[in-house]
Amino acid sequence: MGVDLNIVVVGAGLVGSELLRQLATSPRAGEVSLRIRAVARSKTTQRHPRGLGPPEFQGETVETSLIGLSSYADEGNTVVVDCTASSLVSDTYEHWLKSGCSVVTANKLANSGPLKYYKALRIAQNGRPVRFFYEANVGAGLPIFTTVRDLIATGDSVIQIDGVFSGSLSFIFNEFGCGNNFSSIVLRAKELGYTEPDPRDDLGGIDVARKVVILAREIGIDVELSDISVKSLVPAALQDVSPEEFLKALVEEGFDDISAQASSAVEAGDVLRYVGTVNAKTSLCSVGLGRYPRSHPFGSLQGSDNMVSIRTERYSKQPLVIQGPGAGAAVTAAGIFADILRVAALTSRC
Amino acid sequence: MGVDLNIVVVGAGLVGSELLRQLATSPRAGEVSLRIRAVARSKTTQRHPRGLGPPEFQGETVETSLIGLSSYADEGNTVVVDCTASSLVSDTYEHWLKSGCSVVTANKLANSGPLKYYKALRIAQNGRPVRFFYEANVGAGLPIFTTVRDLIATGDSVIQIDGVFSGSLSFIFNEFGCGNNFSSIVLRAKELGYTEPDPRDDLGGIDVARKVVILAREIGIDVELSDISVKSLVPAALQDVSPEEFLKALVEEGFDDISAQASSAVEAGDVLRYVGTVNAKTSLCSVGLGRYPRSHPFGSLQGSDNMVSIRTERYSKQPLVIQGPGAGAAVTAAGIFADILRVAALTSRC
Repeated sequence: MGVDLNIVVVGAGLVGSELLRQLATSPRAGEVSLRIRAVARSKTTQRHPRGLGPPEFQGETVETSLIGLSSYADEGNTVVVDCTASSLVSDTYEHWLKSGCSVVTANKLANSGPLKYYKALRIAQNGRPVRFFYEANVGAGLPIFTTVRDLIATGDSVIQIDGVFSGSLSFIFNEFGCGNNFSSIVLRAKELGYTEPDPRDDLGGIDVARKVVILAREIGIDVELSDISVKSLVPAALQDVSPEEFLKALVEEGFDDISAQASSAVEAGDVLRYVGTVNAKTSLCSVGLGRYPRSHPFGSLQGSDNMVSIRTERYSKQPLVIQGPGAGAAVTAAGIFADILRVAALTSRC
Repeated sequence: MGVDLNIVVVGAGLVGSELLRQLATSPRAGEVSLRIRAVARSKTTQRHPRGLGPPEFQGETVETSLIGLSSYADEGNTVVVDCTASSLVSDTYEHWLKSGCSVVTANKLANSGPLKYYKALRIAQNGRPVRFFYEANVGAGLPIFTTVRDLIATGDSVIQIDGVFSGSLSFIFNEFGCGNNFSSIVLRAKELGYTEPDPRDDLGGIDVARKVVILAREIGIDVELSDISVKSLVPAALQDVSPEEFLKALVEEGFDDISAQASSAVEAGDVLRYVGTVNAKTSLCSVGLGRYPRSHPFGSLQGSDNMVSIRTERYSKQPLVIQGPGAGAAVTAAGIFADILRVAALTSRC
């Protein structure tokens, strides 16, 4: 019952390197034999006919051809693993799936992009011994999609999904409310490396909206990113200025409106959280600031935790809640790794 | 790639009946064809050569032979599903596994019983196309074992597991602390059907200890139920009296000690919770009352929620936390159902 799986890793940045390290050092049951056949970077690809031996990954170096990676499928069960944030890579998934490669990704672009391509990726799996998994799209290694799929497969029906899906915004609002000024916390989060270089990439809410789109589609709602109501935390006047001007304005002007909302919430024993919501009854999705009692599960968030609350027909009174760090190379790579093991367990059926 | 799976359900009480209902009414992808071949009760078994048609489950009625159920393995992929709390049933798992049947169970007796039998059940799977799954052993349908297994399979290392594993004790301590008397809450929980007929079966902590044993063994700790330090909530003087005397004492004398602890905790802004702990570093396991700040995840528990906090090398600063209703026929049956689908996906490999 042994399974051989060829692994092709695309992208060797923080997450890709960590994945290679985990693949190299993790003990596994004898049932699955994972062979890293290629590591593709934007310009060059390293490959080895018998599998690269991490952590050195020494092998033949050739020019990268994303399309050409599908040739590994001719040599047996193969999974292409996308550790990039590149649309060049995500645009190749359909070709890989149709060529007989499974795909595992942490890259959100395919699942949150045009619905037509999203559906094409599902159709490409039909009748083929391939899988497309993307647990790390939301919450990094937290078991969110596997849980939602189990609920649906066993006949449960999702009513609503709410979550704190951004580690940086989680940190900002978890720190906020002890008399702190919003601007100073954003600057501190930036210094700690929790935000993107331009914090507006987090504060704008688009990354959260992408995750909401992916969750909504997972439960059968046909939604485009442009359909989501996103309430940005960036004041209109600061949306189009340069990064330097934005940071200057952040220091000088503060975000008085948000600071005032927080003070009012804290005085009433509440908390502010930046939340994404999928309402399965109305098919409406939204992203924005919400106010919750401190006794709400969102009230116990700490650090840069993510949290997702799944309310279903069976979990109707009290939702099923999953909480924990939702970003970082180690847990993101672990989410990808778990998907690779699922591919190994499932694609060898035929 | 279609899979046929024979299902033999043992026990048709609350959980077994709900499982049969879910199996009958849940839409599923065309890949898996589930056939309920037999429903075994303690005295009689209903069976049908082409699969029983729920919800009627009409078929031939024969005398129940637990050993004899393994003959279904001769007709293809088969899973025996234990929806009982009977040791007669759990003692038969090894025979079923060795005969080529997978086993799915909600019954905790095999996994929390003698370590020798626990290990025999693992050995029985070696080299055979069978699986033994038991997600519903802890937290009903909450994805606890699947998550722990993914963490370990990807090379993470568990440091500590803490949890509120009893729905009845969760309810009791979630209600407690608003000036209520402990005895009155226990009586109310009993009236609502949250406790066993004799509340000492919950208050004694043995059910929680069984769950702690199963979790400890899952992460590689060889522990027997008798090794667990269990702090019962039942005063020594009331442990051996009759159920009637216990209830009378509960009303008349109260549990002054626990009420005093709770008052003191509430005054300090803390909460009391009945918690099970597995410490992977010391291999020590314990069950008892603990005091936590209200900002701790345990502080946000509501109703009869379960919560498990998993601290690992990768989730070291902030744990991975799973929360939600951990008891009830619908979510327990759903946990079993998800395991059956995992068997269907995995056993058809050979």
